[in-house]
Amino acid sequence: MPGFTGGTLSRVADHRNDAEAFAAAMGDWRARLLKLDGYDPEITEDGRLGWTMVTEAPDDAHIVLLGFDEGRPRFAAAPEGVPAPPLRSPALFRALDQLEAGEAATYAMARSVLDWNARHRFCANCGTLTESFRAGWGRKCGNCATEHFPRVDPVVIMIAEHDGRALLGRQPSWPAGRYSALAGFLEPGESIEEAVAREIQEEAGVSVSGVRYVASQPWPFPSQLMIACIGIADDDAITLDDNELETAGWFTRDEVRAALAGDGPFVAPPNYAIAHTLLTRWAAEG
Amino acid sequence: MPGFTGGTLSRVADHRNDAEAFAAAMGDWRARLLKLDGYDPEITEDGRLGWTMVTEAPDDAHIVLLGFDEGRPRFAAAPEGVPAPPLRSPALFRALDQLEAGEAATYAMARSVLDWNARHRFCANCGTLTESFRAGWGRKCGNCATEHFPRVDPVVIMIAEHDGRALLGRQPSWPAGRYSALAGFLEPGESIEEAVAREIQEEAGVSVSGVRYVASQPWPFPSQLMIACIGIADDDAITLDDNELETAGWFTRDEVRAALAGDGPFVAPPNYAIAHTLLTRWAAEG
Repeated sequence: MPGFTGGTLSRVADHRNDAEAFAAAMGDWRARLLKLDGYDPEITEDGRLGWTMVTEAPDDAHIVLLGFDEGRPRFAAAPEGVPAPPLRSPALFRALDQLEAGEAATYAMARSVLDWNARHRFCANCGTLTESFRAGWGRKCGNCATEHFPRVDPVVIMIAEHDGRALLGRQPSWPAGRYSALAGFLEPGESIEEAVAREIQEEAGVSVSGVRYVASQPWPFPSQLMIACIGIADDDAITLDDNELETAGWFTRDEVRAALAGDGPFVAPPNYAIAHTLLTRWAAEG
Repeated sequence: MPGFTGGTLSRVADHRNDAEAFAAAMGDWRARLLKLDGYDPEITEDGRLGWTMVTEAPDDAHIVLLGFDEGRPRFAAAPEGVPAPPLRSPALFRALDQLEAGEAATYAMARSVLDWNARHRFCANCGTLTESFRAGWGRKCGNCATEHFPRVDPVVIMIAEHDGRALLGRQPSWPAGRYSALAGFLEPGESIEEAVAREIQEEAGVSVSGVRYVASQPWPFPSQLMIACIGIADDDAITLDDNELETAGWFTRDEVRAALAGDGPFVAPPNYAIAHTLLTRWAAEG
């Protein structure tokens, strides 16, 4: 299962529009607030999220109803107007390695919605300060009445395949030795399949066809939907866009399997990234 | 091929960040501007988009570089701050029925990016009026330096399948007799497969598993990515959320095929909607 999936909270969207139901959930003695250190999760020794009383929410926080855990209301809060830092901390990377999959899904939801609220306080239509509504799942403008909802930005992430080998690349900012699937934001006016073909063409100069979908995951930095695909390359000549990639190359299934096992010609992406899922699935096809 | 896909413009993203290349494209004698009546396309008798000289762009318009058509620069423009009307006109519906698929893809890109600019003139981070940059594919805040990029909102659209029948529903606002696939916005912190299961559960009270991806399309009203899937229902008992649906029911492949042929128990969705593609593919599986 891809990272950040398998969450067990019920989202109870019907509670978001219902002020009475929201107030009852806040007042429920079983209600809990996600423990956060800034935007990093505070996790227990057995890889689970920490929870505290809702009264621990900071003053002037915006509060988000995450959902119900077997009837028990679960909330998250962050100080109004303080977004997540642009760079992820080493503590966060360690936490992501330790978090159970379903727990990471709850964290992803909380982080994306809190951070979106913090970075979208003003009305994009008229510039007025907005108010949180729908239990933290939206913001409404008191001036022009425009309603704003959290962004989810679709990203395609993919390998091109040619003659039993997969095209992988590396970005200069990545850890030493890391190679992974190519990726890029899907743009207005294109399908998933078209975005995959365009990105591989732009970044590596490789034409693909026969694009097929493999899997998806949410990625909460800040709020992407990662859509993993495989395309079939017409040939293996690479023309690198060095604004995007430091290098790119073709790897056999044996090489990818060895890398996933920690002993290959490159350092594989981490477990919780869908590139890991994608490489694992591709390697298993051979 | 799903509607709004198959566009033939090269997006030349490298031109967006390059002021000189953008100016050269604007000054190119082969440059053309998409003919629009407000946000509706002006189409020719053979179902193609109309184009005019770039000098026809309104004063104070924001200009978007759509891409190159075999080396010929293609632009679109709309008056600054005038968004698309919330309701689609009868003229637009007629145009969509007549437009060739690849032409509709170009129109979808233009409409989504122009309309996003018009509805996002102010910085969501600080409320300041922003400026268009990246050849119309972004807006930048002169006060806090935040960069904003066009939204693409992923939507899942799906049928549940049970014992050879597909679950379809109808919304009260639809044309008389129309049934279609259920649909809803994907939320932060969930995968495509999870969003499909959640939406079918919320709208119809039906549990599904084994969700599989079928196809995708852009939908420019205002800027969705429609992701079509099929899930396998545990049973066929429906519990309707009547805030979302007027009614829902199960239809056999023969009934769906008849409807797609214009002679069935319900009115099928239009050709250019991916629900049409989804129903066509599902009906062909039996």
